[in-house]
Amino acid sequence: MAEEETEISGSVEVEDILDAFESHSPERVLERVRQAHPGDIEQAFERLDDQSREAILDQLPSNVLAEWADYLPAADVERRLHTLPKGEQREVLDSLSDDELVDLLQEMEEKDRPQYIELLPDEKREVSENLMQYPEETAGGRMTMAMATIPVGLTVKEALDELRAIKEEAELLSRIYVLDSERRITGKVRMRDLAFSTWDTPIADLMDSDQLSIHAMEDQEEAAQMIARYDLVALPVVDDENRLVGVITHDDALEILEEESTEDMEKISGIGGERGDFAYLQMSVFSHFKRRAGWVVILAFLALTSGWVLLKYEDVLTAVFLLALYLPMVVAAGGNTGAQSATMVIRAMSLGELDTREFGRVVWKESRIGALLGGMLGVLVALQVCFFLPDFLLPESLDLGNFSMFDVAAVVGLAIAAQVFSSTLIGAILPIGARAAKLDPAVVASPAITTIVDVSGAVIFFTLAKMFFF
Amino acid sequence: MAEEETEISGSVEVEDILDAFESHSPERVLERVRQAHPGDIEQAFERLDDQSREAILDQLPSNVLAEWADYLPAADVERRLHTLPKGEQREVLDSLSDDELVDLLQEMEEKDRPQYIELLPDEKREVSENLMQYPEETAGGRMTMAMATIPVGLTVKEALDELRAIKEEAELLSRIYVLDSERRITGKVRMRDLAFSTWDTPIADLMDSDQLSIHAMEDQEEAAQMIARYDLVALPVVDDENRLVGVITHDDALEILEEESTEDMEKISGIGGERGDFAYLQMSVFSHFKRRAGWVVILAFLALTSGWVLLKYEDVLTAVFLLALYLPMVVAAGGNTGAQSATMVIRAMSLGELDTREFGRVVWKESRIGALLGGMLGVLVALQVCFFLPDFLLPESLDLGNFSMFDVAAVVGLAIAAQVFSSTLIGAILPIGARAAKLDPAVVASPAITTIVDVSGAVIFFTLAKMFFF
Repeated sequence: MAEEETEISGSVEVEDILDAFESHSPERVLERVRQAHPGDIEQAFERLDDQSREAILDQLPSNVLAEWADYLPAADVERRLHTLPKGEQREVLDSLSDDELVDLLQEMEEKDRPQYIELLPDEKREVSENLMQYPEETAGGRMTMAMATIPVGLTVKEALDELRAIKEEAELLSRIYVLDSERRITGKVRMRDLAFSTWDTPIADLMDSDQLSIHAMEDQEEAAQMIARYDLVALPVVDDENRLVGVITHDDALEILEEESTEDMEKISGIGGERGDFAYLQMSVFSHFKRRAGWVVILAFLALTSGWVLLKYEDVLTAVFLLALYLPMVVAAGGNTGAQSATMVIRAMSLGELDTREFGRVVWKESRIGALLGGMLGVLVALQVCFFLPDFLLPESLDLGNFSMFDVAAVVGLAIAAQVFSSTLIGAILPIGARAAKLDPAVVASPAITTIVDVSGAVIFFTLAKMFFF
Repeated sequence: MAEEETEISGSVEVEDILDAFESHSPERVLERVRQAHPGDIEQAFERLDDQSREAILDQLPSNVLAEWADYLPAADVERRLHTLPKGEQREVLDSLSDDELVDLLQEMEEKDRPQYIELLPDEKREVSENLMQYPEETAGGRMTMAMATIPVGLTVKEALDELRAIKEEAELLSRIYVLDSERRITGKVRMRDLAFSTWDTPIADLMDSDQLSIHAMEDQEEAAQMIARYDLVALPVVDDENRLVGVITHDDALEILEEESTEDMEKISGIGGERGDFAYLQMSVFSHFKRRAGWVVILAFLALTSGWVLLKYEDVLTAVFLLALYLPMVVAAGGNTGAQSATMVIRAMSLGELDTREFGRVVWKESRIGALLGGMLGVLVALQVCFFLPDFLLPESLDLGNFSMFDVAAVVGLAIAAQVFSSTLIGAILPIGARAAKLDPAVVASPAITTIVDVSGAVIFFTLAKMFFF
């Protein structure tokens, strides 16, 4: 039995649930889903489109919805909630964990909020009102308030009695915070410390006074990075008076870092705006369009600058049309090397490996890398022009006048070397500059680099050509 | 006191330690570092270059090195180890956790390994030989063997006695695995279950038989994704006979997912090869060069295809040289939209939101997004050609013959629409195709897309121009 069960791999589970969903048979869905891990249900659900999700949720009795609600996208739960009678709404809301409840309340239109908050039991209402005061992207907006705390001055026996009362609600019992009368953290104990000690041991003798915490208004990413750096199970969140208001747990940190990586990648590719809780297939065509349209339009019109450079050098190009063969190469090499150094630097800053005060060292490193890359490519390309240029690549109108292919090789080789060197540097400098100017490196750097490097490539190429051939 | 300590933020700590490192005063380094969190030491250390790290390590007495060794890059520890007498080598090796020890042994040259393995106490030697049989990127290669286990059939009292004996070695006591005589997992208990139960309760009554586990030879990324999906603190790793051989913990999952995101980003930007344990500044110029040179060269020569297309259409270009103004725009718009859809699809696959069986839905979605983006951009650009083309952008030799600016607008608008539409689709299809062919989508897709889209842009543009103007 153990043998069979351990062989179930997560992705098979998800496929299975998707099959059940697609059968459109409410019985099959319910049966399959009752055996599934909520994490798999969540993932299967996120892969459905709007209509399918609506259809499935509409068939669910509210008690099953209550069971799942923590794992479903807040927007879907809200839509279904609207259609339920008050009693069943209460059942679903009651089943949600603090942070999911707050997500749901923040997701809905403001006018709908009071009617749902009214349905909550007093304690839950207070918690959600507390949590909602923090913006979504902050540590406070991400934390849960369901942590285990005990007052200072207890014995192990007394602490266990306190904890027994809250063990169902607390999301995490492996870290227990010991609070003074002002709710300030005086230390923490672990469950194991309690389990291995005699009942009359004072908690004060067991506790660890390590004081890592984060302010509720700090960025959630900072919290996630602290959890990663210190290998924490949970990070306490405190308010202005240094009182414990909640904790961010290791699984939140994982989610936050995944989201931030996704955001960085998207920004580097010129995709803007909020992603929200939506998976790729779940997002509407129009939402995708809106997130992509901005940079596409801006970059397209900025590319007119490159076109204008071509026009300005019309004489050079038409005189030695062979240059057209190498123009895309020079431009592309700049784009590629600029993207490489920008990615390295942006990621290093995200991972906390690098900050603006290391600007000089980055420039020095990238100039050596750029010189190596540019030098190597320049030599290779010059050799190719001289010795490996097949006839079919030559323009029909080839007329080099007084010049030789060695001159072309020199121009192309020098141009590509200069372009690669400068692009590598531009790609590294712009993100650091953006960070220093308190802008988002990933947003600013990539589009700017693409445009600058396209123009610089053409300018370098034609300037060199003009020097050689005119 | 609590107030002061909780205000220390991680990044300030790292700067402080760096300052101490840079003072080159062994006393200051030691003093500063004794108070610091190992996570901060690790991060500060990673930001130093080779010489500084060597200088600092050489000043450290071996007992301090032993204290830190878990948090320092394996390569640095190894280098320092070589210079120590046998007794001190033993002290350092003994202080390492299982997984760090294995990293270190795997890092060193094979001929050096036996002499260090010999220094290990029997138990540690066995553990490290066990762990070394799994390749580095697998669940087995990443796991720790220091998990808490108890045999089936104990009472709470007996379990606590067993655990008390191992509590110093176990990395994680919050999950305790209950094993049968074959070391198969029959269930797990949490520390809280033990703490809240009377001593004579049989463990069998408390344990949870949830059977999530992963095979030791599976990819470490799959393990990390399971931990993320199921919000696990630890995931058991099993062998072919389904025996428990180790666990992967939540902090490993965080590291793995950060590494994988970094790798994906780098691959998308054409950066190849292994990153290893090196931070950006720590990696040598030559290592950076090697990781970037491959695609830079390949892509540069592939760009000759675009150049060749330009040569083929020399007649069109020279006849209507105004087209040169818009050529970079058409090409760039394809590159940008192709990169956007490729990034969306590659990331969605990495996050498990998408797999190859959803190919059809992705194509359908992207064709609508591509049509919207292409249509919008085509109309905007056509309007710009007709109504907002300032004189300074026009070529000196402008001669449209029988044609009007409306013809140019039609060519440019249609070309950019077709280019954006096709690039959006290519950007989405190539990564899924790569995945279906068992290739890495991030490696294959981006360079291929850049090249294809550059060529297709020129071909589309000139073909349309030829149809209109000739």
